[in-house]
Amino acid sequence: MKYNFSITNLGKRLIKSPLNISNFTQDQKRLLFNTYSDNYLSCTDEKGQPLSVELAGPRDKIFFDPSQTKAAIVTCGGLCPGINDVIRSLTMTLFHRYGVKKIVGFKYGLMGLNPASAHKLINLTPEFVNDITSIGGSILSTSRGPQDVDVMVDYLVRLNINILFCIGGDGTIRAAEKIIAEVTRRDLKIAIVCIPKTIDNDLNLIQKSFGFDTAIEKTVEAIKSAHVEAKGAFNGIGLIKIMGRNSGHIATHAALAQNDTNFVLIPEVPFDLEGENGFLTILKKRIKSRGHAVILVAEGAGQDILRENISPMEKDPSGNIRLLDIGLFLKNAIEDYFKKIDLELNLKYIEPSYLIRSVSANASDSIYCNSLGQYAVHAGMAGKTGILVALMKDEYVHLPLNTVTSSRKIDSQDNIWLRVLETTGQPPSMKN
Amino acid sequence: MKYNFSITNLGKRLIKSPLNISNFTQDQKRLLFNTYSDNYLSCTDEKGQPLSVELAGPRDKIFFDPSQTKAAIVTCGGLCPGINDVIRSLTMTLFHRYGVKKIVGFKYGLMGLNPASAHKLINLTPEFVNDITSIGGSILSTSRGPQDVDVMVDYLVRLNINILFCIGGDGTIRAAEKIIAEVTRRDLKIAIVCIPKTIDNDLNLIQKSFGFDTAIEKTVEAIKSAHVEAKGAFNGIGLIKIMGRNSGHIATHAALAQNDTNFVLIPEVPFDLEGENGFLTILKKRIKSRGHAVILVAEGAGQDILRENISPMEKDPSGNIRLLDIGLFLKNAIEDYFKKIDLELNLKYIEPSYLIRSVSANASDSIYCNSLGQYAVHAGMAGKTGILVALMKDEYVHLPLNTVTSSRKIDSQDNIWLRVLETTGQPPSMKN
Amino acid sequence: MKYNFSITNLGKRLIKSPLNISNFTQDQKRLLFNTYSDNYLSCTDEKGQPLSVELAGPRDKIFFDPSQTKAAIVTCGGLCPGINDVIRSLTMTLFHRYGVKKIVGFKYGLMGLNPASAHKLINLTPEFVNDITSIGGSILSTSRGPQDVDVMVDYLVRLNINILFCIGGDGTIRAAEKIIAEVTRRDLKIAIVCIPKTIDNDLNLIQKSFGFDTAIEKTVEAIKSAHVEAKGAFNGIGLIKIMGRNSGHIATHAALAQNDTNFVLIPEVPFDLEGENGFLTILKKRIKSRGHAVILVAEGAGQDILRENISPMEKDPSGNIRLLDIGLFLKNAIEDYFKKIDLELNLKYIEPSYLIRSVSANASDSIYCNSLGQYAVHAGMAGKTGILVALMKDEYVHLPLNTVTSSRKIDSQDNIWLRVLETTGQPPSMKN
Amino acid sequence: MKYNFSITNLGKRLIKSPLNISNFTQDQKRLLFNTYSDNYLSCTDEKGQPLSVELAGPRDKIFFDPSQTKAAIVTCGGLCPGINDVIRSLTMTLFHRYGVKKIVGFKYGLMGLNPASAHKLINLTPEFVNDITSIGGSILSTSRGPQDVDVMVDYLVRLNINILFCIGGDGTIRAAEKIIAEVTRRDLKIAIVCIPKTIDNDLNLIQKSFGFDTAIEKTVEAIKSAHVEAKGAFNGIGLIKIMGRNSGHIATHAALAQNDTNFVLIPEVPFDLEGENGFLTILKKRIKSRGHAVILVAEGAGQDILRENISPMEKDPSGNIRLLDIGLFLKNAIEDYFKKIDLELNLKYIEPSYLIRSVSANASDSIYCNSLGQYAVHAGMAGKTGILVALMKDEYVHLPLNTVTSSRKIDSQDNIWLRVLETTGQPPSMKN
Repeated sequence: MKYNFSITNLGKRLIKSPLNISNFTQDQKRLLFNTYSDNYLSCTDEKGQPLSVELAGPRDKIFFDPSQTKAAIVTCGGLCPGINDVIRSLTMTLFHRYGVKKIVGFKYGLMGLNPASAHKLINLTPEFVNDITSIGGSILSTSRGPQDVDVMVDYLVRLNINILFCIGGDGTIRAAEKIIAEVTRRDLKIAIVCIPKTIDNDLNLIQKSFGFDTAIEKTVEAIKSAHVEAKGAFNGIGLIKIMGRNSGHIATHAALAQNDTNFVLIPEVPFDLEGENGFLTILKKRIKSRGHAVILVAEGAGQDILRENISPMEKDPSGNIRLLDIGLFLKNAIEDYFKKIDLELNLKYIEPSYLIRSVSANASDSIYCNSLGQYAVHAGMAGKTGILVALMKDEYVHLPLNTVTSSRKIDSQDNIWLRVLETTGQPPSMKN
Repeated sequence: MKYNFSITNLGKRLIKSPLNISNFTQDQKRLLFNTYSDNYLSCTDEKGQPLSVELAGPRDKIFFDPSQTKAAIVTCGGLCPGINDVIRSLTMTLFHRYGVKKIVGFKYGLMGLNPASAHKLINLTPEFVNDITSIGGSILSTSRGPQDVDVMVDYLVRLNINILFCIGGDGTIRAAEKIIAEVTRRDLKIAIVCIPKTIDNDLNLIQKSFGFDTAIEKTVEAIKSAHVEAKGAFNGIGLIKIMGRNSGHIATHAALAQNDTNFVLIPEVPFDLEGENGFLTILKKRIKSRGHAVILVAEGAGQDILRENISPMEKDPSGNIRLLDIGLFLKNAIEDYFKKIDLELNLKYIEPSYLIRSVSANASDSIYCNSLGQYAVHAGMAGKTGILVALMKDEYVHLPLNTVTSSRKIDSQDNIWLRVLETTGQPPSMKN
Repeated sequence: MKYNFSITNLGKRLIKSPLNISNFTQDQKRLLFNTYSDNYLSCTDEKGQPLSVELAGPRDKIFFDPSQTKAAIVTCGGLCPGINDVIRSLTMTLFHRYGVKKIVGFKYGLMGLNPASAHKLINLTPEFVNDITSIGGSILSTSRGPQDVDVMVDYLVRLNINILFCIGGDGTIRAAEKIIAEVTRRDLKIAIVCIPKTIDNDLNLIQKSFGFDTAIEKTVEAIKSAHVEAKGAFNGIGLIKIMGRNSGHIATHAALAQNDTNFVLIPEVPFDLEGENGFLTILKKRIKSRGHAVILVAEGAGQDILRENISPMEKDPSGNIRLLDIGLFLKNAIEDYFKKIDLELNLKYIEPSYLIRSVSANASDSIYCNSLGQYAVHAGMAGKTGILVALMKDEYVHLPLNTVTSSRKIDSQDNIWLRVLETTGQPPSMKN
Repeated sequence: MKYNFSITNLGKRLIKSPLNISNFTQDQKRLLFNTYSDNYLSCTDEKGQPLSVELAGPRDKIFFDPSQTKAAIVTCGGLCPGINDVIRSLTMTLFHRYGVKKIVGFKYGLMGLNPASAHKLINLTPEFVNDITSIGGSILSTSRGPQDVDVMVDYLVRLNINILFCIGGDGTIRAAEKIIAEVTRRDLKIAIVCIPKTIDNDLNLIQKSFGFDTAIEKTVEAIKSAHVEAKGAFNGIGLIKIMGRNSGHIATHAALAQNDTNFVLIPEVPFDLEGENGFLTILKKRIKSRGHAVILVAEGAGQDILRENISPMEKDPSGNIRLLDIGLFLKNAIEDYFKKIDLELNLKYIEPSYLIRSVSANASDSIYCNSLGQYAVHAGMAGKTGILVALMKDEYVHLPLNTVTSSRKIDSQDNIWLRVLETTGQPPSMKN
């Protein structure tokens, strides 16, 4: 893939930053995209320089006049630990560091940008956001699915919004691109800055999405429970369905963090259900030899098997392909199989998703969200638009929205997957 | 109900207790069953004395010679926090305080008492049990359902078991009664002592079952999550199905411990689904006025409604009436109803059962289990049989097995239920 | 001791309770004080009836007219998990169940009852208290030490307070007695109802003080840490100083809840430091044979040794005898001793007190605090005064203030202490 | 500073790796040391190439024959969350991926490498290490301070150790350098690979040390407690002393993760105690205006003030300068100052160090430790020596031991420190 990491600026930055610091970040200071000694020159940009990415950070000159600026925040998609930390950081940085006093929150995701939904705006003040990090979820609430772009841009104009901060995933990034296209078409000076949110950690280019650390911690608890239940009964199986639409990042990391999992099934590594090398046969062997098993299945795993067995694909309001429920499917498939081979089975099914998505961020995620919010404000005030703020090679950078998409992140030859195989003892392939 | 609290002793106690203490408990020292100034004389026993219950505690003379005694432990039914604490306490007290060196554990509940199941006995030593309290579940594993009584008694005889400690619920207590009947018929000197286990806390006469405190702590986490999810979406509902077959003890206590629940549905308080005063109408009103709701439903609630709507009752291997799934039924009923009245709905369904049953005991339950195990050993060594060890009015007592059954424990006029109504704001009746 | 459990009523109860329930509690219904079959008749009251205690609960007739009533709450002494739960429950019960709308909180303990301190009153409303249970400490803050009684009563009169709820320990109960004496002398109709608070669980007659369960849970964490540190170094010792001025309840319960403690030192069981059977000799033996040790010392332990070695006794602002610091004293004594006998030592000293006192209540304590607040309101509205609300034999009762004092609660022959000896392996006596 | 990142190899790698993978790491593939577009060419190595660092990872050819290899592990210095995770990962990777069956652990740090200490070696097997990650500390225990190099090398030779894995901090790295010098002098083929351990996260070049994330989580709990205690009393101050000898990394990160801290004092930012701009004056102002304060002080802060006030510097057994206790010093200084200005003060002092160091790793640290152990084994088996395995720009690399030292990591112009100032509201300078 050929990337273009050029960043769009709304215009010349004429206003002196109110920040009283000495180490402003310069646009010219960029992070190399390839950083190995044998490849850093392999890709070049339009000027023939090694491909590089703009660093995030406060600029000494900014585009928006803080005293005149009105900022807005919207949160979209599924809940995820840390959203409130980002909201707090955005608000505090705008208010205390830049002196922006007009900050509003749209309620219920993009629905809130449609005035027809009649959801009131929330005034975001330091007092209002001060303690919100102890609560999970989003104080602005969220929704899934798109809204009419014209309607949303009309509303932004009517409200005199200068900067819109979007906290959301793949679908939200796509929606933000459309809003920018319309804003550009109308030649408006509205900056759109995204903070990527995906509990699945499945965005390409991005080192780690916020909330992921917390999700692993909670998933580990579910694994412990499944293990206790599996060992607590004769031929006991603990089956956990966990988040992971496109990528099994949560499942793999959780399996590495807690050593009791015996099978990890993820979207990236296809498997057969039946046949000599298929999952059910391997599972039977394990049960016969060890008397129990813990299975961790990412929601996006085995979709090919499901479609064969069930029905055609549908899309949900966000435009995501609606996943068929691999968890309940596997539960039934295992039960049927053990009945067929006449083996006693005690299967306990655990689906902890909402118990994970809803908790407040752990310390590591809190700090990370705090940073993301701060860098997003620096970008927005500087008039950067159409970007998202991300961590890459442990540096905060600006990425054009179109460079980032939800995608598979694990290859069956990746070190992390090899470590999972080693930890679980599951065979490298369960394909016939 | 007329109780008979006479305790059966296997025989005269001729052996001096090895315990080097000065405060042994005398059989004659009993706890009054009625302890109010206006009723303590209202019930009398066969000797015309106020009805009373035998106190648990070490006896100065014991029935079994520790050097010759072989004890066994079995754990039955669903997992529950604290089982391993009881196993540890039984083992440590037998070994260190009485000097009983032969202690075995049957694997997989009553299945383990059937030699045909070929499950190996576990040798229980202080080393083996020392650290088991940090793990949830039961190191002996469990199973549900009965086994042939003759076969079990034959096996106890073959193994030379003198005392059998049964950790289990209603079904296990009934099974223990049958074993005792057969043991008595054969004139064997085998003591059977039960430690009641029910995460639902639904046994009559008993102040609190072990694991209950821990279960409430974990349920509170689920309520917090449901609340975050409910508030996180437009017309959000968090619906939690929680344990509670016959009694809504867990649901009511958890609702009191965490103030975010709006509806508590329990087996003891019937409700209508439809109609002007029915649950769905009340729920709709709440959603319209407040935008979100948290519902906590005990698994045994609304069984009348389910049977009307679905199918006849069945029994599970333990002989319990198989409950129809009120959780999924309610989920569907709510979704259908909101679709019918054309109201947007975002319902998140949470079923945390195994995530609760499988954790290790909290400090309070650990201490309680430690006590129960110790008193059970004192009883068994004294030759008490057909009893269970229980907490009553904050004293440890011996209760004949036939006095204790699983039952509804909450009355709609009880203080605890009134407090739930007050906390949730739900109407006293949702019957038409 | 001869108890008199007569309860003082401010006057005839002429107002119908606004509670819409059917099961009011009658004054005549009392709980027997002695409930064993061989002693329930052993103590009698002034009427020759078996000694009994008044049950707590809502009365069908009440003394105060809710629409005219003004209630106040004050919290005194050290922090303890659950204070905010009690404040919330008092407020909610007064407001929602009785319709009392004027509820105020005094800031900073008894200081707040002295207008010279100029601390503003807090208006306690349902909105204000709704979420306070998630925070530790007291939203009213506390202080130690007495204030002038006349000044406080003058202020109560000036503010038109009808019921004063005092949440505090031994010192607060003594202060409340003085306020009542003055209120009575002036023939005022002000009810004083106490909710006993002591993290040490050291009040006689009372089954369990609130916050105690939570304190044990946190102490268990400290024991685990001390154990890890002790085993992590050669001849490692983990020494924990824990709360417990008069009674070692926390230390003993925590030692039972977590099996890694090797020595428990409490106020009730004196020990020698030196000499053949003294603590240091026993400790040396353990270190030589096992290489590590965990010691849990209650702050009130070994005060005799300290006084010999250091200085005369002083009193703190609450009138408590100021304890000399047994923790640091032991630390130094152990280090000196090991230096003297030339044995390597790695001692880690842990003092978790504030990390325990400051946490929010666990689920079990939350429910308990909720009950206590509710019963206190029922008592206050009925015009009961000079009482505290307490749990006794698992029933909520009213106790006259003068019957309750802080005291030693563990006897060296008590079952709980014997279990500690068994768990730790420490010798029954470390006296020469 | 001019770095030399050349890595020493014990010799030619002639043995085919037993790993059945396709993506081995080549020595030539290196990570650029400078990765900004304006500086990547600014430093060059001896060959005139941009300065770069060797990537960690499995090599296709290895130096040691697994069937003949004997590996050893030693853990040194203070405890830290995750040590057991590293030990487990080293053992599992050696055993299962390379087939090395002879793995031993030295007990008690470098003491264990001195046979005179007579500590038994521990045989490290998969069974032995399987569950150790649930325990805090080090199953090998640790010690501080050096041992004679000749003696240690003699012992390594006598035991036929081929690879020594050292888990430790600055002192351990220095000791490892001396062992390597002696090993080289004797021309022995023993590889020494370090896994850097410092809870303070104060090693230069290294992105994050293991255990740091967990330490922040626990420190956050202490901040919450200090905040509750500070607000719970009139003019309340919660003063926490936290780890951080050379760098205030823990203090700054914890302050960012939990927003209740008002003052953060770290080694990198000097302050005056007295005077108009001094800390005490600022503190007094805050107390007068807000009534409470939370202070977080890193143990290495204000050492200049202490030395002026107290005594000359000493060194501990590890050769670290023995820090004077800034926590107790500040406690006394604040108490004296408030007494002098006659202002009531309620100061609660909290020192949670051992409660933090001793816990087991959180999920994120577990995964990280798992990686570090694995990469260390790949390096050792390949015959790399005199290196440590580290994370740098989110890549695992090999660093020569002499490039890494403990150092100050925060500059008063760093973004992270500016964020602390913003969060706490403390003035940028408290120097007169």
